[in-house]
Amino acid sequence: MKKLFYPLLILTFVLSAVAHFTHWGPVPEFMMSGLAILFAAGLLGKATESVAHYAGQRVGGLLNATFGNAAELIIAIFLIKEGLFDIVKASLTGAIIGNLLLVLGASAFIGGLKFKEQKFNVHLAGQNASLMLLGIIALFIPAIFVKTEHISTDNTMTISIVVAAFLIFAYAGWLTYSMVTHKDLLEDHVDTQADHGEEPSWSRGMSIVLLVVATVMVAFVSEWLVHTLDTFSSRFGLSELFVGAFVVAIVGNAAEHSAAVMLALKNKMGAAVEIAVGSSLQIALFVAPVLVFVSLLFGNEMNLIFSTIELAAIGVAVLIATSISRDGATTWFEGKLLLIVYVILGVSFYFV
Amino acid sequence: MKKLFYPLLILTFVLSAVAHFTHWGPVPEFMMSGLAILFAAGLLGKATESVAHYAGQRVGGLLNATFGNAAELIIAIFLIKEGLFDIVKASLTGAIIGNLLLVLGASAFIGGLKFKEQKFNVHLAGQNASLMLLGIIALFIPAIFVKTEHISTDNTMTISIVVAAFLIFAYAGWLTYSMVTHKDLLEDHVDTQADHGEEPSWSRGMSIVLLVVATVMVAFVSEWLVHTLDTFSSRFGLSELFVGAFVVAIVGNAAEHSAAVMLALKNKMGAAVEIAVGSSLQIALFVAPVLVFVSLLFGNEMNLIFSTIELAAIGVAVLIATSISRDGATTWFEGKLLLIVYVILGVSFYFV
Amino acid sequence: MKKLFYPLLILTFVLSAVAHFTHWGPVPEFMMSGLAILFAAGLLGKATESVAHYAGQRVGGLLNATFGNAAELIIAIFLIKEGLFDIVKASLTGAIIGNLLLVLGASAFIGGLKFKEQKFNVHLAGQNASLMLLGIIALFIPAIFVKTEHISTDNTMTISIVVAAFLIFAYAGWLTYSMVTHKDLLEDHVDTQADHGEEPSWSRGMSIVLLVVATVMVAFVSEWLVHTLDTFSSRFGLSELFVGAFVVAIVGNAAEHSAAVMLALKNKMGAAVEIAVGSSLQIALFVAPVLVFVSLLFGNEMNLIFSTIELAAIGVAVLIATSISRDGATTWFEGKLLLIVYVILGVSFYFV
Repeated sequence: MKKLFYPLLILTFVLSAVAHFTHWGPVPEFMMSGLAILFAAGLLGKATESVAHYAGQRVGGLLNATFGNAAELIIAIFLIKEGLFDIVKASLTGAIIGNLLLVLGASAFIGGLKFKEQKFNVHLAGQNASLMLLGIIALFIPAIFVKTEHISTDNTMTISIVVAAFLIFAYAGWLTYSMVTHKDLLEDHVDTQADHGEEPSWSRGMSIVLLVVATVMVAFVSEWLVHTLDTFSSRFGLSELFVGAFVVAIVGNAAEHSAAVMLALKNKMGAAVEIAVGSSLQIALFVAPVLVFVSLLFGNEMNLIFSTIELAAIGVAVLIATSISRDGATTWFEGKLLLIVYVILGVSFYFV
Repeated sequence: MKKLFYPLLILTFVLSAVAHFTHWGPVPEFMMSGLAILFAAGLLGKATESVAHYAGQRVGGLLNATFGNAAELIIAIFLIKEGLFDIVKASLTGAIIGNLLLVLGASAFIGGLKFKEQKFNVHLAGQNASLMLLGIIALFIPAIFVKTEHISTDNTMTISIVVAAFLIFAYAGWLTYSMVTHKDLLEDHVDTQADHGEEPSWSRGMSIVLLVVATVMVAFVSEWLVHTLDTFSSRFGLSELFVGAFVVAIVGNAAEHSAAVMLALKNKMGAAVEIAVGSSLQIALFVAPVLVFVSLLFGNEMNLIFSTIELAAIGVAVLIATSISRDGATTWFEGKLLLIVYVILGVSFYFV
Repeated sequence: MKKLFYPLLILTFVLSAVAHFTHWGPVPEFMMSGLAILFAAGLLGKATESVAHYAGQRVGGLLNATFGNAAELIIAIFLIKEGLFDIVKASLTGAIIGNLLLVLGASAFIGGLKFKEQKFNVHLAGQNASLMLLGIIALFIPAIFVKTEHISTDNTMTISIVVAAFLIFAYAGWLTYSMVTHKDLLEDHVDTQADHGEEPSWSRGMSIVLLVVATVMVAFVSEWLVHTLDTFSSRFGLSELFVGAFVVAIVGNAAEHSAAVMLALKNKMGAAVEIAVGSSLQIALFVAPVLVFVSLLFGNEMNLIFSTIELAAIGVAVLIATSISRDGATTWFEGKLLLIVYVILGVSFYFV
C-alpha cells in the first residue's frame, strides 16, 4: 500500500489533468479529480506533519493546528471564488459530521472489535465537548436570530464577521491552553503529536518542497473538481447539498479517516479521537471563520448562516459524539451508534 | 393485593366484554376496557418473564427485550388498523415520557424518601443516555428534514423505512452488547434480570399457556378500548393527543410503574432504572420502528414523522432523565424534578 | 473602595433624584439612576446577608434564597406596572445569561489566570445542572406549545400560572434538599454561606433598618430608571430587548459580579459558582414565576412565554455553563469560552 502511494499520486494527478483539459465529460472528470485530491490531500497532510516536526514542538503544533485541514480550505476557497456558498457550507457541515460520526465511528467500531474497551484522557474529552459546544453555539445563534427576526443583509454580514473573529480568538486561546498553559492536563494530546511525528521520512528541505508541491497539486485539482460539481450533481440527480456534505467531504477527509482507523487498531484511541474531534474543531473554529474573511478579500461576501438542516446535522453529531466520548472510553457498540447516525443523516440529505 | 389479582383480572375482562357488546356507552366502556387492559398487561408481563426464565438467560433476555412492551404493541396495532396514526404516535410519545418521567420519577421520589441516595451502575447509565440520544436523533432528523425542506410523501415514507430498519439494527446491536460482549461491564442489568426471574410461580407449560391467554386478552380489550377513544375524548373535551399521550400510556404502563416503585422501595434502584429507561429505549428503538413495518403489512402506511410538540416532549424527557441518572445515583429531589416536568407536559398537552 | 461606598451610595441617589425631578433629560437621568441602582443593590445585598446572619443558618439561608435577587425583582415590578412585559422578560433573560456567562466567565477567567485549576463540589455542579435544565424546560415547553399549536390567550395564561406554581414548588424542594435533607452532600454550598456571613459589620437592629432603607432606595430609583428606558433606547437606536437584556441586567447584577470575581481570586471558586449559578436558578425558578403572580395582582397579566431568541440565548448559556462546570473544575480557558459566548449573544441582540 505504502509503496503504491507515490505512483498513484502522480498517476491520478496526471489523469485528472488530462481529463480536465481534453474534456472527458463531467463524470470521469469528477471521478479522476476526486481520486487525485484524495492522494494529494494525503501528501499535504504528511508534508505538514513533517515540516511541523522540524519546526519544533510548539511551532509544529501550531502548524498542524493551522494547516491540518489545508485541503478542505483550498477546495472551499475555489468554491467561494465561484460564489458557490451553499456547497462551501455543505462541505464544512460534511467535514464536521464526517469526522465526528464516520471517522470517530469507524475508529471506535473497528478498534472495538479488537479491544474490549479503548480508553483516553477524560480531561481532553471534556474540553473537546465544551469547545464543540462553542462551535455549535457560534453557528446556531446568528442563524436563529436571522431566521426569526428582521435582520438586514448588512447586519447579518457584520454579525458573521464578529462571530468569525471571536471563533478564531477562541481557537487561538485553545492552542495556548492545550500547548502551553495546560499541556500536562491533556496528556493524550501530546501523545498524539508524538505519534504523528515519530519518524519523519524526509529531510527538512524535502519536507518544505513537498509541502509546496502538495499545496499546488491540491489547488489545481480542487479547481478542476469544483468545475465539474454542477453537471455531475445534476447528471446523477444529486442535490448540491448532498454532493457537498457527503461526496466532497469524504474525499477531502479520506487521509484522516485511514490514519484514525489505523491508530485505533493499534489501541491508540486517544490519538484517533484527537484526529477526528480535533479536525472537527478546526473546521468549526478556524476553517469556517477564516473562509468568511477570505470571502471578503474576493468581494464575494459569504456569511456564517447555515441552513436549518445543516445546523440540525451538526447539532446531533456533536451531541452523540460528545455523549459517547465524555467518559473517556469507547466500545464497538458506541462506534456502531455513530455510524448509524451518519447513515440516517446521509439518507435524509439524499432525499432533500 | 396479590390474592385479588386473578379475580380482578377476570372480573374486569368480563365486565369490559359485557360493556362492549351490550353498548354501555363510551365512558363506561372506555373505563372498563382501560381497567381490563391494566390487569391483562400485568399478566402479560409476568407470563413473558416466566417464559423467559425457562428459556435460559440468553434467549430469555431476548424474549424480555422483544415482548416487554407487548401490550403497547398490540394496542398500537389496533390503532394502525383503524388508521389512527396520530393516536399511535401520541401513545408512543406518552409511553416514552411516562417511563422516563412518571415511572423513573416516582421510583426515585418514593425510594428517595426511604433511602438518602440510591446508586446504580454508572456505565449502564452512560450507555442508556447515548442510546436514548440515538432514539431522539432518529425521530428528530426525519422530522426536521420533512418540516423544513420539500420532501415528497413517498420519500418521507422511504426515509421512515430506512430509519426504522437502522433503529432495529441498533437495538439488535444493543442486545448483543449488553447480553453477550459487554455483559460484565453493565452488571446492574444482570441483577435486574435475576430480580425479575427469581421465583417463577408457574411451570414451563403453564407459563406458555398464560402468555397466549394474556396476549389474546390484551388483543381483545385493546380493540374495545380503541373503539371508544373517539367518543370518549370528545365527550370530555379532551384532544386525541392528550388521551393517547397520557390516558392510554398510563394504562399501558401501569404494571411497569408499580414494579419499578416496589424495586426502588427495596433499594434496588438499578433494576427500577432498568425498567423505566429500558422500556423507553424499547419503545423508541424497537416498538416504533416495528410499527412502521406493521403499517406496511396493513397497507396503511404510517411514517416516523412525529409532531413538533411530541418531539419537544420526548426531547426534554430524555434531557432531564439523562442529566439526573448520568451520575449513577438518584435522590427524592431528583424524582420530584422528573415528576414536575411530567406535570408541566401534561398541563401543556391538555390545553392543545 | 470600601470607604467610598457610602458617600457614593448617597451621592448617586441624591443626584438621580435631582436628575429625575428637575428633568435633566433621558440620557443623564438614565445614567444617574443606573449608577444609583448599582450602589443601592449592593447595599440591599449586604443588608440581606446581614439580616440572614442574625436569623440563624436555616431561616437565614431561606432569606438569602428569597431576597438574593430583590433588586431585579423590584425593577421588574415597576416594569410590569407600566405593562412593559417585553423588557421584563428581556431583563430576566439578561440576568440569567449575565450570571451564567459574564459573572461565571469572568470569575473563571480571572481566577484561572492566578490558579491553574479551581475545583468545587461535583455533586453540587450536577444538581445545579439538573435544576437549570428544569428551568429551561419550564420556559421552553409552554413557548413551543403556544408557538406551534393554536392555544387561546386564556389557556396560555392558565399554562403560565400552573408552570409558575410548579417552578416555585420545585424551588421550595431545592431549598429543603440543599439546606435540610442533603446539606452534607453539597458541602460547598455551606461554605458559601459561611463565606458570605463571616463578619457582619452591623448589629441586628441596624441590619434590619438598612434592609428597609436599601429596599426603599432601590424601589425609588427603579421607578426613575424605568421611566427613562423608552427615550434612552430610542435616542441611542437601541432595541428595548438589548437595553433590557444587557444594560438593565448588568446594572442589576454588578454587586454579584464583583463579589464572585473577588471570591475566585481568593480561590473560593465553589462560592463564586454558587453566586453565579445560584442567582440564575433563583431568577428562573423563583423570580420569573413570582412575577407572573405579581402581574395578576396588578391586573396586568404577564404570561411566561419568552421569545424564540430569548429562549435560544438562555438555552445556549445553560448548555455551555453546564458543560464547563459539570466536572467540578474551571480554568482560564473555560472562562474565556463563556465570555466569548456572552459577546456573541450581545452582538446578535444588538442588531435585532
